[in-house]
Amino acid sequence: MARIVQKYGGTSVGSIERIKEVAGRIAARRSEGNELLVAVSAMAGETDRLISLAEEVSPLYPDREYDMLLASGEQVSIALLSMALNAMGVPARSFLSFQLPIVTDERHSLALIREVGTERILRSLERGEVAVVAGFQGVTPVGEITTLGRGGSDTTAVALAAALKADFCEIYTDVSGVYTCDPQVYAAARKLARVSYEEMMEMAGLGARVLHPRCVELARKYGVNILVRSSFNNEGGTWVSEEDEGMEGALISGVTYTKGEAKVSIMGVPDRPGIAARIFNALSDKGINVDMIIQNVSRDNMTDVTFTVPQADLNRVVLLMERVAQEIGAEGVLSNSDIAKVSAVGAGMKSHPGVAARMFSALAGEGINIMMISTSEIKVSCVIDSRYTELAVRVLHDAFGLERGSS
Amino acid sequence: MARIVQKYGGTSVGSIERIKEVAGRIAARRSEGNELLVAVSAMAGETDRLISLAEEVSPLYPDREYDMLLASGEQVSIALLSMALNAMGVPARSFLSFQLPIVTDERHSLALIREVGTERILRSLERGEVAVVAGFQGVTPVGEITTLGRGGSDTTAVALAAALKADFCEIYTDVSGVYTCDPQVYAAARKLARVSYEEMMEMAGLGARVLHPRCVELARKYGVNILVRSSFNNEGGTWVSEEDEGMEGALISGVTYTKGEAKVSIMGVPDRPGIAARIFNALSDKGINVDMIIQNVSRDNMTDVTFTVPQADLNRVVLLMERVAQEIGAEGVLSNSDIAKVSAVGAGMKSHPGVAARMFSALAGEGINIMMISTSEIKVSCVIDSRYTELAVRVLHDAFGLERGSS
Repeated sequence: MARIVQKYGGTSVGSIERIKEVAGRIAARRSEGNELLVAVSAMAGETDRLISLAEEVSPLYPDREYDMLLASGEQVSIALLSMALNAMGVPARSFLSFQLPIVTDERHSLALIREVGTERILRSLERGEVAVVAGFQGVTPVGEITTLGRGGSDTTAVALAAALKADFCEIYTDVSGVYTCDPQVYAAARKLARVSYEEMMEMAGLGARVLHPRCVELARKYGVNILVRSSFNNEGGTWVSEEDEGMEGALISGVTYTKGEAKVSIMGVPDRPGIAARIFNALSDKGINVDMIIQNVSRDNMTDVTFTVPQADLNRVVLLMERVAQEIGAEGVLSNSDIAKVSAVGAGMKSHPGVAARMFSALAGEGINIMMISTSEIKVSCVIDSRYTELAVRVLHDAFGLERGSS
Repeated sequence: MARIVQKYGGTSVGSIERIKEVAGRIAARRSEGNELLVAVSAMAGETDRLISLAEEVSPLYPDREYDMLLASGEQVSIALLSMALNAMGVPARSFLSFQLPIVTDERHSLALIREVGTERILRSLERGEVAVVAGFQGVTPVGEITTLGRGGSDTTAVALAAALKADFCEIYTDVSGVYTCDPQVYAAARKLARVSYEEMMEMAGLGARVLHPRCVELARKYGVNILVRSSFNNEGGTWVSEEDEGMEGALISGVTYTKGEAKVSIMGVPDRPGIAARIFNALSDKGINVDMIIQNVSRDNMTDVTFTVPQADLNRVVLLMERVAQEIGAEGVLSNSDIAKVSAVGAGMKSHPGVAARMFSALAGEGINIMMISTSEIKVSCVIDSRYTELAVRVLHDAFGLERGSS
């Protein structure tokens, strides 16, 4: 017998028919003799419907009331899923955050989980019930409702698995697992049987829309093994866990891409101490998330500073940087939103040099110009012209032999 | 400065536009220097939408999960109304039952309020905020979510008014107050300026769809003055309060009717002790709500027993009574669902005899046959053929001089 946490996302519970299917999946797992805890998102479309109601009232709503509003979405889905389970003869009980409690800090709409009360769930499991928990939400120590922001329901599931010492955590979504690259871009994409927490975090941060990095980080912290799989089929999924020996064989686990960023360059920046701080403080003051930063060695006491930001922020950033450029005596600001970031991720590159070189060669072989480069222990990212994105993914997938499952 | 509780029903907050209008009303009341607490129902249609989702899952849902599901409806409306108030510059804060708490017993979907915590609301009012409270729902001492059943949001409002010693409680609905009869049946209907709790309870129980008797009972118990008015216009409404001298002038306050009942007669019942108990225990065992009961004096040791039940239960009741009739040796069962109950209600009849006689004469004058009669301290009800309902209402309205506002 295992204790299993399952998480079902919005598309997995997007209709009554889907909810009944999910109930069937839970019932099957339970009939194998397992204890089941389930974290559930709001039905697909419901959160968007609530947000649009709020925006119709006023775009300037208080965060507290926004959380109060949104939290109703999971309340509906947990009640319906519990009903569906009971209708199948599987005893089930739904729980809201305040009932456990799932205690968070006070940051409305971006709250962090501090503690998970386990007593009520343990009693529920002892009674043989499936415990169905509202994902994405929490409650502050004084009883204010909070929501966890992006990746919230995944995070709820992992936090439950950690607090209740579950054997593992199954995250059900609309894809069958983690792939070597986006299967819609390259049919040769292969589903990975395992990835390490570190690889998963890099891949998630780099555009693989499977797990939010935050939930992977929590899983790593508490050693929660995650199985990512689809609620729309019965395929095996991908395990996300500690790096192990079997993983070291592969140099690269996957190739990812993201198109949502734009590039901004401040040209002819006087190379004096404090200038970079001036630029990036201006951005962080406005809450703008900067991804890659490049500053070349200076020439004639002048340098160019380039960075990437979300495309949605580009107009604001350009206005802001034009002001900063003037203040610091820079020559001007250039921007480009027709870019994409292509990355190769793999724990294997820690012990195998030469990944970056092989990547640059492969791109050059197709005549793809590299605009920016950034590296970490387990990934190399290149910014390229966005029109070459899909080509670059395919070329790198081939160059690292991902189709064959070796490198 | 007064402390005022307002309650807005589902149609009053049925759209974002309506919610903004309601926010305007609240802001206006507050700008007069009053402290405002608001109890809100789910947006019109939302509760029905949730119930139909539940029934699509399974008609045999656990009551606990039903309450979990339904309670999400008011959570949405309180958040949106608080947003609308804040957008107008009126500080407002929404509260769910568990946050106050509004403590109820354990009877899911029919819970009774036991206690209302006032501390958080008082702090909110001290900060100058409008406290916006989810109607219709509560929480048990161990933190289970309950709903209050019919008239629930009105009851929440009155319970808040009682606990917080509000000066009065405004119940906003889609009618402008309590009328001497249904204005759709007789255009001569006049809006009452005041009715007593007792009259309101009788009128509500007899078909006037304004306030649920349960909420009026609670108001009487705690001496909460209620003002019933429309959220769609600025008319003055009707006060519901203790009977006072001004009220005694009127013999009759209103004429009501209901068409939802059916009449069942058991003919030729042997007149022995215990027979009536046998009949009505059989009905109460099935949870069937019996309204009027008539048993005439017996003749030849036989009597006829007649009672009314909701039309929806008629088929079940007839089957049940045929079995009972056989067991007790009665002659047979007759039933009729083409009936209506017409009632005259007025605290004045306590001190003025002759109301019943005047009512029977008025009906006889139009050739309307009276099938059953039942009386209480402050009402007389007659069951008649349903085709004469509207005629009877108009005749009685005239007979008691309700149009002129005197008797």
